[in-house]
Amino acid sequence: MADTPLQRPVTRRRLLGTAGATGLALGVTGAAAGYTAAAPSETVTPLAEVGSRREMFHVKHQPGITTPLHARGHLIAFDLAPGAGRKEAAALLRRWSQTAARLMAGEPAPAGGHDTGIALDAGPSALTVTFGFGHSFFARTGLEKQRPAALDPLPEFSSDRLDARRSNGDLWVQIGADDALVAFHALRAVQKDAGQAARVRWQMDGFNRSPGATEKPMTTRNLMGQIDGTNNPAPSDEDFATRVRVPADGDPAWMAGGSYVVFRRIRMLLDDWEKLSVTGQEAVMGRRKADGAPLTGGTETTEPDLERVGKDGELVIPLNAHARITRPDQNGGAAMLRRPFSYHDGIDDEGVPDAGLLFLCWQADPLRGFVPVQRKLDRGDALSAFIRHEASGLYAVPGGAPKGGYVGQELLEG
Amino acid sequence: MADTPLQRPVTRRRLLGTAGATGLALGVTGAAAGYTAAAPSETVTPLAEVGSRREMFHVKHQPGITTPLHARGHLIAFDLAPGAGRKEAAALLRRWSQTAARLMAGEPAPAGGHDTGIALDAGPSALTVTFGFGHSFFARTGLEKQRPAALDPLPEFSSDRLDARRSNGDLWVQIGADDALVAFHALRAVQKDAGQAARVRWQMDGFNRSPGATEKPMTTRNLMGQIDGTNNPAPSDEDFATRVRVPADGDPAWMAGGSYVVFRRIRMLLDDWEKLSVTGQEAVMGRRKADGAPLTGGTETTEPDLERVGKDGELVIPLNAHARITRPDQNGGAAMLRRPFSYHDGIDDEGVPDAGLLFLCWQADPLRGFVPVQRKLDRGDALSAFIRHEASGLYAVPGGAPKGGYVGQELLEG
Repeated sequence: MADTPLQRPVTRRRLLGTAGATGLALGVTGAAAGYTAAAPSETVTPLAEVGSRREMFHVKHQPGITTPLHARGHLIAFDLAPGAGRKEAAALLRRWSQTAARLMAGEPAPAGGHDTGIALDAGPSALTVTFGFGHSFFARTGLEKQRPAALDPLPEFSSDRLDARRSNGDLWVQIGADDALVAFHALRAVQKDAGQAARVRWQMDGFNRSPGATEKPMTTRNLMGQIDGTNNPAPSDEDFATRVRVPADGDPAWMAGGSYVVFRRIRMLLDDWEKLSVTGQEAVMGRRKADGAPLTGGTETTEPDLERVGKDGELVIPLNAHARITRPDQNGGAAMLRRPFSYHDGIDDEGVPDAGLLFLCWQADPLRGFVPVQRKLDRGDALSAFIRHEASGLYAVPGGAPKGGYVGQELLEG
Repeated sequence: MADTPLQRPVTRRRLLGTAGATGLALGVTGAAAGYTAAAPSETVTPLAEVGSRREMFHVKHQPGITTPLHARGHLIAFDLAPGAGRKEAAALLRRWSQTAARLMAGEPAPAGGHDTGIALDAGPSALTVTFGFGHSFFARTGLEKQRPAALDPLPEFSSDRLDARRSNGDLWVQIGADDALVAFHALRAVQKDAGQAARVRWQMDGFNRSPGATEKPMTTRNLMGQIDGTNNPAPSDEDFATRVRVPADGDPAWMAGGSYVVFRRIRMLLDDWEKLSVTGQEAVMGRRKADGAPLTGGTETTEPDLERVGKDGELVIPLNAHARITRPDQNGGAAMLRRPFSYHDGIDDEGVPDAGLLFLCWQADPLRGFVPVQRKLDRGDALSAFIRHEASGLYAVPGGAPKGGYVGQELLEG
C-alpha cells in the first residue's frame, strides 16, 4: 500500500524536492505580494513544506485523481448560461485551464481584474483543479455525436433520494488543496472565470485529515469512524489503467487517457449509526472498526475469508456485510478508485446532522465500476439503513492538457 | 510578535515536547483502537507532530482563547431543554468538562455508550473545547443574581442584519483543532453529552490555514485576502490580563480569570469587494494588502502615521479607513483579542457566496472592548459597505476548571 500515490507516506525527500521545484513560483508570488523574504527558521521548515507541495497541471492525466487525499475540497457544477454554446465553452475551458495551471504553481490568478489575494503567503499546498463534462453539456453545445455512451444516465436505485437541483450539471470542477484558504482562493477564481458563460448549479465543500494529523498520513476515516479507502486500486497495479483510465484507443477519441467520475452525496444517519454498539457496526461493515481488518482476522489489507463460519454456526462476515458486497471478486472484477471528501453542513431543520461523504469514484466505465456495485448494495447492504444518497453526478473527465492547450480541447475543437 | 501564543512559530522543540507529553495518551487510544505501533519513519515524524500537539484542559484560563489559531472550528449554541434547570446544567457542564479533558488528551469520549471512533489514528491535534454562558442562561436556572452586568445585551447597531435564530443561546461551545475529523469527533461528543438537558440552537463551521501552509504559521488571511490579527494584544503585553481577563477580584466572583467573548457572523459581500482594485481595497483598509503594513509605510507592526498627507493633499490613510477607526488609541484604549475563523456555506438562493468571518473577540469587558469599536465602525467605516453582521452572541467564559472540577462550577454550585 505504501508505494501507491494515494497512500504513500510524504517523505522528507519528496517534500524537499517539491519545495525546491516551487521556489521559483513562490518567488514570483512573493515579489508581487510583498512576501516576507526572511529565511524561515530550521524548525518551521518541515511544516511550511505542507504549503510548498506542488502538483502539476500539464500532465498526461488530469491531477486530482491519483493525488493523495486533500485536507479540503470544493465540488462545483456549472450550467452553461442561456445563449452560451460550444464557442463560449471552449473559451471558458481555456480560461479555466490557464487559471488552474497558474494557481497550482502558486501564482496569482490571471483572468480579468486582480487576484483576490486569499492565497498570499501560502504555497500551492498541493492544489489541484480537475474539469469534467456532464451528459447535458453535449446537447447544449451541438456535440451530441461526441457524447460518450458511458455518460448515459445512471440507473435509478431503489434507495435513492436524489435532489435534482444538487445533481448533474453541464460542467463539473473539483478543487482540492491541503489548505482551506488556498482551496477557497481557487474556488473564487474558477467562479470568476465563469463570467457570463456559465452559472453555478450547485456547490459543496468537503474535508479529509490535515497532513500530519496521523502517523500514516494517507489513512483517513469517514464520519462514521470507519477507515476509508481500503482495497483501493493502486496506480502500480498491473490493471490500474484498464480499470480507471479510458484506453488510448478508447471511444470517443477525445476521452483517451481520461476517466469517468461518479459523484454521490451520501448523507450518514449518524444518530442511528452511533446507537449501534461497535460490534454491531462491525457486523454491518464486515471489518474491525479499529484497524479496518476483516472480521476473519489479519490486517486492513488481508483478504477476508468469506466462507468462515463462527462457533455460533453463522458466517463471520455476514451475507449483507458491506465489505462482502463491495468486494471486486463478488462484482465481476468491478473496481473503481475511490477518492472522497467528508462533508458537514450543520444540522437540518429537524435537528439532525447533515453530514456524510462526498463520494467520488473514478473508473474507465461506470457500467463496470460504480453501477454493478451499487446495484448489489441497493439490494441488500446492511449499511444502507444508515446512509442516504441525496445527490448524484456522472462526468467525463478527459486526459490532461499539454502546455499551451486546455482540458477538453480535442472535444471542443475536434 | 513571535513570542505571543497567538503568533509564535511552532518550534520543533515545542512539537517534540508535546509529542512526548502525549505519548501516553496516544498509547491508550492506540491500545483501544488497534493503533499501528510500527515506528514512524524519520521523514514522517515532523508531519505527524501536527496530530500530537496537545493543549491542556485543566488550566487557569480555559483553552481556546490564546491558543494559536486552529485550522478547523465549530461553534455551537445550546438552549436548555424545557424543564432543565440549574441541576441539569451542572451535570451537563460536568459531563462536557470530562469529555473535553479526555478528548484534548487524545483519549476516547467517556460518556454513555461508545466513542464514535472518528478521531482514531490522529492525535489530539491541538484540540480545545471552550464553554460559555449566555444572558438567557441565568433566568432559566434561577441564577439571575449571578448574571454579570457585562452580559447585558449588546446595543443595536444601525448596520446589523441579525438573524435571531442564529444568535445568542443559553450555552456556547467553541471547538478548535488542526484536523477537521478531530474537531468533528469532539462536536459529536459534545452534542451527545447534551442528551436531554439541552438542544442545539445553532451551529457553524469555520476554518483557518492548515499548519505548515505558510512560512509564518500564525499569519492568516480572511476571505477578502486581508491579513487578519494585526495589532492583536499579546499575552506577554503588560496590560494583556487587564484588557482580556476578568481580574481575580472581579465581579461576579465566579468569573475571576474568565473572559467575555463577542461572536459576530460577518458575511463578506465578496462579489462587490472583488470589483474594487487593490488600491481601492487598500484605501478601505488603510493598509497594504500584500503585507498588512499601513499605507504610510513600514511593516505590519509599524504604527500608522494618521496625520500624513499625500501629494494630492489628502490624508494617506483616509478618515474612514478601517485601520484608523479600529486603532486602540482612537477608542479610549479599547482592546480585544481577536481569534476568528473564516466560514463558507456555499452560495445562497440568489447565487451570492455565503462566506465571511466568524468573528470572535475576547475582552475583560465588552463595553471597553467590542462595543466602542463597533459603535465607531457603525458610524463611518469604509469597510461596512462590504460586510454584513448576520448573527451575534455574547457569552461569559469563566476561568479554567481544576482537576476533578468542571467549568462553571463556582457559578452552579456557588
